[in-house]
Amino acid sequence: MIGRLNHVAIAVKDLAAATAVYKNALGAEVTEPTPQPDHGVTVVFVTLPNTKIEFLEPLGENSPIAKFLEKNPDGGIHHLCYEVDDILAARDKLKAEGARVLGDGNPKIGAHGKPVLFLHPKDFCGTLTELEQA
Amino acid sequence: MIGRLNHVAIAVKDLAAATAVYKNALGAEVTEPTPQPDHGVTVVFVTLPNTKIEFLEPLGENSPIAKFLEKNPDGGIHHLCYEVDDILAARDKLKAEGARVLGDGNPKIGAHGKPVLFLHPKDFCGTLTELEQA
Repeated sequence: MIGRLNHVAIAVKDLAAATAVYKNALGAEVTEPTPQPDHGVTVVFVTLPNTKIEFLEPLGENSPIAKFLEKNPDGGIHHLCYEVDDILAARDKLKAEGARVLGDGNPKIGAHGKPVLFLHPKDFCGTLTELEQA
Repeated sequence: MIGRLNHVAIAVKDLAAATAVYKNALGAEVTEPTPQPDHGVTVVFVTLPNTKIEFLEPLGENSPIAKFLEKNPDGGIHHLCYEVDDILAARDKLKAEGARVLGDGNPKIGAHGKPVLFLHPKDFCGTLTELEQA
């Protein structure tokens, strides 16, 4: 069912510092910061040959990553995102297997403009897991 | 400098349960467990079209992931691994940029039979980061 690893999301307090580490020390290709006010984050993508890293910095009040950064002041991996061909079929299969889908169970439009769902970390090896319609 | 994301490593207490979730609920292709006594882990690979997930379960006493699982009893993402063409050149560049390389700074032979280095999480956005010679 799951296809490509679309991205690994890393939450950071200081996007400029994180970007500098990946650009200068690791020699990676990084994009300019993109504010996404609807999602409460500013995003930088690290473009790798086979997937991407997404740095997330809190934007505005009530950012969904604010609490995570209180617990992880150095930053840390926030979630993994897998692509699926049919997000509704994926949701129904997961529910049938007893896995918990977060929110009301209906896909939302994610940061890439595609339908996404988040799955409960306790059901997925302690890892917040996002599914994105491919 | 960094190339492909070689893998995302997820540490778990119960490899069979983790494997079942990825195989049954997420419909992914998973390998048989491979004990790696020299590295203190038993490994299962989840094969994705563009990269892989590596589940790590402690093996024997003094497993390098035992403390991580004490802190994260549900499991969690343990490290990311990037490929580099020249691991010694990568190390020297990282040191010149002020990043901390773990251990004595000399590459060890990793779980895939290739030279690897681990980088300090505090210098890489709270993320334990492995470099593997491609």
